[in-house]
Amino acid sequence: MSTLPTDIRVDGQPAGVQGWPLDRGLHYGDGLFETMVVRGGRVRFAALHRARLALGLARLRISLDEDAAWGEVSAVAAQHAGALLKLLVTRGDAAERGYAPTGTERPRRVLLVYPAAAVAAPQAADAAVVSLGLRLGENPLLAGIKHTNRLEQVLARIELAATGAFEGIMANNSGLLVSGTLGNVFVRLDEQWLTPRLDRCGIAGVMRAVLLREAARDGLAMREADIAFAALSRCQSLCISNVRLGLLPVASLDGRALARDPALDALARKVERLDD
Amino acid sequence: MSTLPTDIRVDGQPAGVQGWPLDRGLHYGDGLFETMVVRGGRVRFAALHRARLALGLARLRISLDEDAAWGEVSAVAAQHAGALLKLLVTRGDAAERGYAPTGTERPRRVLLVYPAAAVAAPQAADAAVVSLGLRLGENPLLAGIKHTNRLEQVLARIELAATGAFEGIMANNSGLLVSGTLGNVFVRLDEQWLTPRLDRCGIAGVMRAVLLREAARDGLAMREADIAFAALSRCQSLCISNVRLGLLPVASLDGRALARDPALDALARKVERLDD
Repeated sequence: MSTLPTDIRVDGQPAGVQGWPLDRGLHYGDGLFETMVVRGGRVRFAALHRARLALGLARLRISLDEDAAWGEVSAVAAQHAGALLKLLVTRGDAAERGYAPTGTERPRRVLLVYPAAAVAAPQAADAAVVSLGLRLGENPLLAGIKHTNRLEQVLARIELAATGAFEGIMANNSGLLVSGTLGNVFVRLDEQWLTPRLDRCGIAGVMRAVLLREAARDGLAMREADIAFAALSRCQSLCISNVRLGLLPVASLDGRALARDPALDALARKVERLDD
Repeated sequence: MSTLPTDIRVDGQPAGVQGWPLDRGLHYGDGLFETMVVRGGRVRFAALHRARLALGLARLRISLDEDAAWGEVSAVAAQHAGALLKLLVTRGDAAERGYAPTGTERPRRVLLVYPAAAVAAPQAADAAVVSLGLRLGENPLLAGIKHTNRLEQVLARIELAATGAFEGIMANNSGLLVSGTLGNVFVRLDEQWLTPRLDRCGIAGVMRAVLLREAARDGLAMREADIAFAALSRCQSLCISNVRLGLLPVASLDGRALARDPALDALARKVERLDD
């Protein structure tokens, strides 16, 4: 016996018992996304985006036709010199009532195209960053992947908005540094460049992966570590990264001016030239 | 300047740059829900559902027209002798790109009506329960409310499905008992009835509130506590509660037969007769 609804109303109006109102992404945040930069008709770092999405699909056991999705992404990218693309994938409409997927759901994909102006990054000199009070919950099953359970980020942005700062950085419940609200973080601490391990929470950013790879290639010491949030008070430099911002040096943290590291500036310039 | 997309495609087809594909519930799980039982044309425990939704709206700063939403719920309930209703509220379509709400979003509400048969509860004798390996992340800002970031429950149900048990119970990252995948939990431990505190994670169920209230009225000792997940191995009895199941005694936990407590059976019968 089906346990699907017999009637659905949206904003007071009768709606069919199918489609969007049944989407599990809407009901449970049961989905994944990728935010990608298009340059010269191509998605930058497409292979890394594809790999991260594949990891998320495997973790959540969502059976997307990945070739069809990436074929569409490539075709849309080819129409744009510059743009920001967001690929959103949900498990699709519920096949039964309740949290349990049946395995028969047909994933839904939404591709959103944003104008190139949305890709513009702020100037580093303006990049004041604050530490936020919100602590991120930890779940290794959800760590690293870019799933659509993002209320913590929504609440973090609300906390951040009250400060006027460009970005806020957060700890997890264990008191370890995780990331910013919209990017990963690199900190210079005791003469070393470190970035948080993301095995308990946080999103494993594509730009973060590129930076770690290129730093290794260039012999620049930069490694993943467990970093106490409290240690930020003595960090010398801090950078935020995502595919939209690249590697952005932060001017100040909680009002304390930070130094810039010429080696990181050079890495940022190198990465800005790369597309793969 | 607007940062909304200029083009959206859904499953490969061009779609308008408005409506569902922009819903923040879909993108971030930025929403809340209530699952309610209708009996005799009325929502049981409507005031408690309304209070919990109001708490969630305040926490997430979603400005829903609550009177309109509950007016619709009442009107739809009045058309049914028995049914299950799900009210889903999202922050509405994104007003700008990104996690930060602008405060100008117009919430969207979806009301789903399920047939009364969906309300039917399993027999207690069949209610085998297992403890799950998945640990719930902790965030006091999200604890207690019924928000739509429910990937942990989806993954828990996938873990549960492999066991064949009716329900699975979970700990948080601190090793404390939280709840089942679809209901709250009451355990008899060292001759006391306890239910987990829900200040770090978990949903504060309406039926749980009713049970605590009625137990207090009847002089039945039952209280909230921090309960070590490991202590379950020596619990004497265990019950699962939600508005659909009422208070369901569990027959076995991880294969170990549990006792039934006549006092709890009496409480379950009393609560089954209540509608407020």
